Amino acid sequence: MITSTANPKVKRLVTLRKKRRARDEEQVFLAEGLRMFREIPGEMLRELYVSETFYGRERELADRKAGQAGVRPEILSDHVFGYVSDTKTPQGVLCVAGRMPGVSREKLLRPDESGKMPLLMVLDNLQDPGNLGTIVRTGEGAGVTGIFLGRDCVDLYNPKTIRSTMGSIYRMPCLYVDDVPELLGQMKQEKIRTFAAHLEGKRAYDEEDYTGGCAFLMGNEGNGLRREVAELADTWIRIPMEGEVESLNVAIASTVLMFEAGRQRRIRDKSSIES
Amino acid sequence: MITSTANPKVKRLVTLRKKRRARDEEQVFLAEGLRMFREIPGEMLRELYVSETFYGRERELADRKAGQAGVRPEILSDHVFGYVSDTKTPQGVLCVAGRMPGVSREKLLRPDESGKMPLLMVLDNLQDPGNLGTIVRTGEGAGVTGIFLGRDCVDLYNPKTIRSTMGSIYRMPCLYVDDVPELLGQMKQEKIRTFAAHLEGKRAYDEEDYTGGCAFLMGNEGNGLRREVAELADTWIRIPMEGEVESLNVAIASTVLMFEAGRQRRIRDKSSIES
Repeated sequence: MITSTANPKVKRLVTLRKKRRARDEEQVFLAEGLRMFREIPGEMLRELYVSETFYGRERELADRKAGQAGVRPEILSDHVFGYVSDTKTPQGVLCVAGRMPGVSREKLLRPDESGKMPLLMVLDNLQDPGNLGTIVRTGEGAGVTGIFLGRDCVDLYNPKTIRSTMGSIYRMPCLYVDDVPELLGQMKQEKIRTFAAHLEGKRAYDEEDYTGGCAFLMGNEGNGLRREVAELADTWIRIPMEGEVESLNVAIASTVLMFEAGRQRRIRDKSSIES
Repeated sequence: MITSTANPKVKRLVTLRKKRRARDEEQVFLAEGLRMFREIPGEMLRELYVSETFYGRERELADRKAGQAGVRPEILSDHVFGYVSDTKTPQGVLCVAGRMPGVSREKLLRPDESGKMPLLMVLDNLQDPGNLGTIVRTGEGAGVTGIFLGRDCVDLYNPKTIRSTMGSIYRMPCLYVDDVPELLGQMKQEKIRTFAAHLEGKRAYDEEDYTGGCAFLMGNEGNGLRREVAELADTWIRIPMEGEVESLNVAIASTVLMFEAGRQRRIRDKSSIES
């Protein structure tokens, strides 16, 4: 059992919690809490840390999941666990997770094995970890097949984002790209229609067809999409708004668009079964 | 200028910030920041407090808005303003706002003067201030005509909720009710169809018609709708979900439902103009 906060393993965990660069170098992220532990796929679990109390209570579960992944739980004293943890009242379980395997730009831009057309999000300069996590989680529910993030987005792998994905981080393919305009060019080649969510959009979002391959471009919380990115989109769409609301929160706007796409695809699938 | 945090006016403001009971007794709320100040309707502005620095910079604006409301800006030293403020970096302007006038249960349950059918939210035991604020803001954008809150919901008028409404609190009729089941009975009488958002719902949300008077019942973040409330709804609806997502955040689920209702009503209005 590790009982000192000066232990090098403890110091490394704190660095992984705090520093994007350290997470990127090791290609890992920290997934804390019981839910994140329960849902982690075996192939993504690299290391497991438990508090003394948690291990006393949940030894069977911890040993089993760790065993499946071929790792051993490392026990921290409750004090040391609290020092490592990102939360005020830690649940006592923390995974070092590898990043989702097999994610590539080429795969994301093509229909999957079942023939499902891509439904993609392209996030440009998104800054709020909670918004990003919500988009990942909600996107999974809506049937989004992948998320591209511009290099200047907030770190997907920071603990606050990871927590707010509620486990969807394990299942949603996400990819940082250096050059969003280049990505949009590749989408055009792959016949993926790109829709920029824009306050100046001429078309209402529900007047477009999202049953083919498509991507929604979402911009920064305060400033929206950069013009040079928006101008590369095939179509500008807006969400018609009542009252005096000027704009929606970006996670909320994403929800409206993703679920409209999901709705259209469900209707299409239903009518193709019936006919 | 008030320069002491011991000043009784200052003490009252701090009490109004902290205590729901004090806000309820005076039937007011605090609206802080430039945006909330710019958007406040004259008839709701009861008192205006500005920091010395803010007043030095925005005197003309402060005097004009205060004058329209028939009040005088009260100046606080920057130190005192910081003491009263709910934020770490205060913008230096704080309104004591009266609650929206003319809101009644009877009005909310009937079509408005323009004939618009009610589109209502009924929130039962919602606990997160940010979720509530987001529902108020997003609801205005989607065309929601009013929001009912069960008595056990988080306080609509707490500063975090007010801030996250982004000004919609001034325009969205909201009403606390002691007895949600009784309210649902009155809705039935007024032919307002009630839809419970429920994981066990048999019907997908987009298979129902929301162009008539309707209300969405949303439950607690962790536990969903209480069964005794859900059972009074006309229809249980669910949001079909892909992947392994079990449920959506309540503000996100509300967004999906409110914008589906808005979409259907827009289509209906368009086809009635065209025909």
